[in-house]
Amino acid sequence: MNLLVTGFEPFAGLSHNPSSAILELLPEHLQNHQIIKARLPVDTRHAPEELARLYRVYQPVAAVHLGLAVNRPLLSIERLAVNLLDFETPDNAGARPQDQPILLQAPLALASRLPLRMIQSEWRREGIPGLLSNSAGTYLCNQVMFLALAWLPQGVPTGFIHLPPDETLALHQPQAYLPLSTQAKAVSIAIETTLSSVQAKSA
Amino acid sequence: MNLLVTGFEPFAGLSHNPSSAILELLPEHLQNHQIIKARLPVDTRHAPEELARLYRVYQPVAAVHLGLAVNRPLLSIERLAVNLLDFETPDNAGARPQDQPILLQAPLALASRLPLRMIQSEWRREGIPGLLSNSAGTYLCNQVMFLALAWLPQGVPTGFIHLPPDETLALHQPQAYLPLSTQAKAVSIAIETTLSSVQAKSA
Amino acid sequence: MNLLVTGFEPFAGLSHNPSSAILELLPEHLQNHQIIKARLPVDTRHAPEELARLYRVYQPVAAVHLGLAVNRPLLSIERLAVNLLDFETPDNAGARPQDQPILLQAPLALASRLPLRMIQSEWRREGIPGLLSNSAGTYLCNQVMFLALAWLPQGVPTGFIHLPPDETLALHQPQAYLPLSTQAKAVSIAIETTLSSVQAKSA
Amino acid sequence: MNLLVTGFEPFAGLSHNPSSAILELLPEHLQNHQIIKARLPVDTRHAPEELARLYRVYQPVAAVHLGLAVNRPLLSIERLAVNLLDFETPDNAGARPQDQPILLQAPLALASRLPLRMIQSEWRREGIPGLLSNSAGTYLCNQVMFLALAWLPQGVPTGFIHLPPDETLALHQPQAYLPLSTQAKAVSIAIETTLSSVQAKSA
Repeated sequence: MNLLVTGFEPFAGLSHNPSSAILELLPEHLQNHQIIKARLPVDTRHAPEELARLYRVYQPVAAVHLGLAVNRPLLSIERLAVNLLDFETPDNAGARPQDQPILLQAPLALASRLPLRMIQSEWRREGIPGLLSNSAGTYLCNQVMFLALAWLPQGVPTGFIHLPPDETLALHQPQAYLPLSTQAKAVSIAIETTLSSVQAKSA
Repeated sequence: MNLLVTGFEPFAGLSHNPSSAILELLPEHLQNHQIIKARLPVDTRHAPEELARLYRVYQPVAAVHLGLAVNRPLLSIERLAVNLLDFETPDNAGARPQDQPILLQAPLALASRLPLRMIQSEWRREGIPGLLSNSAGTYLCNQVMFLALAWLPQGVPTGFIHLPPDETLALHQPQAYLPLSTQAKAVSIAIETTLSSVQAKSA
Repeated sequence: MNLLVTGFEPFAGLSHNPSSAILELLPEHLQNHQIIKARLPVDTRHAPEELARLYRVYQPVAAVHLGLAVNRPLLSIERLAVNLLDFETPDNAGARPQDQPILLQAPLALASRLPLRMIQSEWRREGIPGLLSNSAGTYLCNQVMFLALAWLPQGVPTGFIHLPPDETLALHQPQAYLPLSTQAKAVSIAIETTLSSVQAKSA
Repeated sequence: MNLLVTGFEPFAGLSHNPSSAILELLPEHLQNHQIIKARLPVDTRHAPEELARLYRVYQPVAAVHLGLAVNRPLLSIERLAVNLLDFETPDNAGARPQDQPILLQAPLALASRLPLRMIQSEWRREGIPGLLSNSAGTYLCNQVMFLALAWLPQGVPTGFIHLPPDETLALHQPQAYLPLSTQAKAVSIAIETTLSSVQAKSA
């Protein structure tokens, strides 16, 4: 059984993105599940294609999507995704949709299917502060989260976690950061908690 | 031979201060030096007395003073201390001096005697971003730094490092933080770099 | 014909709230409409009652709801409200709902019916920067916005504008602020733009 | 009798600098003094030459120097200048000194000779929050302040006020700002307060 974790390639002129750099710090297996790790393009047209392919090929029982939030110093678990593309910066292919829906005929917002409060309290137990966030933005992160919630079957837990800058970014440009090793520990906890909630339901 | 490291007790209504909590994570010995660890009161009258006592008793060959800077998410090494007390919040004894000199007949500012750039570049080598800061404020941190520079002999390297909030503070009140273990690694590097610079001079 | 503008009473221990202080700086009439000004309690139980009463008594053709956003230095027009109460601080009556819906059987989110982009560009023409925001939070502001969108007829434009701190708050506690007179100018522009859009539709 | 006010030309790739844009909003005369307004180059070599020329030609009885502080949303009056050039970004001529003194044989720091507390309390009376700052940075602003304090006779009040971004900058790039008209009012008050203090002394 597969659990899918995705990050994004670098964007906005940076050469590094913690959400993909973190993937190699995550375990290969957790609780009898294979952890499938994939890097998505920062490209509003091709990211959905790649996401659909990953879902089709791996048929994940859960999917945790990751992305960088530049001005948020704490890990944040998104509560909902909105049906809106409105890019302040162009994506890596130069596209810059404004005030566009992601999916026609879909609701304005879809709610995360990750066990938000359980993840937050497991983090706290391990000494890692984290927030619930009410907005995943209107860029690629929100797009991927919205599509995950629209495309995966209702019984498949999925959602989005925004990561803070890491040391590589803060060495390049001084800013608040969280060491990538701490971020990897937090994401592993989030995956384990999500898998536990799957098993609790199916048991 | 002794190297002195100090932190402060909690203040401003908080029950925790990373600058004293960090002390027990530091080694007891480094490069044939005993690391003397001491906690200073957040008290504009008694902190100088305790500082003078520590200098007299331990005769340190170097002194690294630590304090918390609430709104600075990165470690920062102070470049200079100013001859000024101007408290926005009262100290733990309720004193709140305003626009007062620390020492009469002393210069307006004294320069750090830590190897600032060397520490910063050792941090960078270990993947820890840090800044040089041009102001240690006008509270207890600046007072201790000014007195250290005024009282210790010119040949004794001394200065001040401001620490960011740690996970304990960020769990209590969401804010940018740096794990205390990363902070302890950074302070150990700063101590080692300072000791190396002492030995380089005396060799 | 009436246009309703509401602000909130002070909360969170402060003695001032720009969203109600601004009301007396707004005109009494605009474009042949009476501007009805009302102050809502920061009380999750009584604010809805007062809102329902205002809608019933004044039958507004448009409603612009205002609130303070403490850490946002720019005016922001909310894009959507979510069906969620999750208070970090208790309201003025001491209530602190967590992870509760505002209305059962209602959608997860409702979209603003103010002319967002027109207001933003009118502001820009007058030299006032403003943002579109993707989250009105999960406190009273979001609750009032959600109820306005749920309760007022579809043809009635309504939505929410978050105001930054003003000089009164910044004199009390140093922070980024926008002079209340500039805020009042911005809100008047927003009202006028909303009324123009109503008339454009009905013409 | 002349009072000199200076601002800087734009820098760091921006096309606007509130510290020079403000000059035309200031009065030509105040309290029987001519207000001499000048724009300095952001050029570590030529700014001092221009400053020396202005002092020589106009023989000011007081000098208020202005500059932009990008991440400070409130007006701040600098307490001291340090004898240090350390540029994070090159100046407009491409120079980027690091860890260099401004003047050899000069003290590490020089104290402002503006009536800091009086200006701050006059601002408060007019509803304008402002801070005293302990660091003017290590860029051109600090350089000009240091030279002003070193070169002008002791009896001539001089110092530096950092201005926040204005609406022009915030419309270009969303950020906290203070309307330029409010800034101009604040600077006029600072000039008047400085002139009053000169007259009080000479009376």
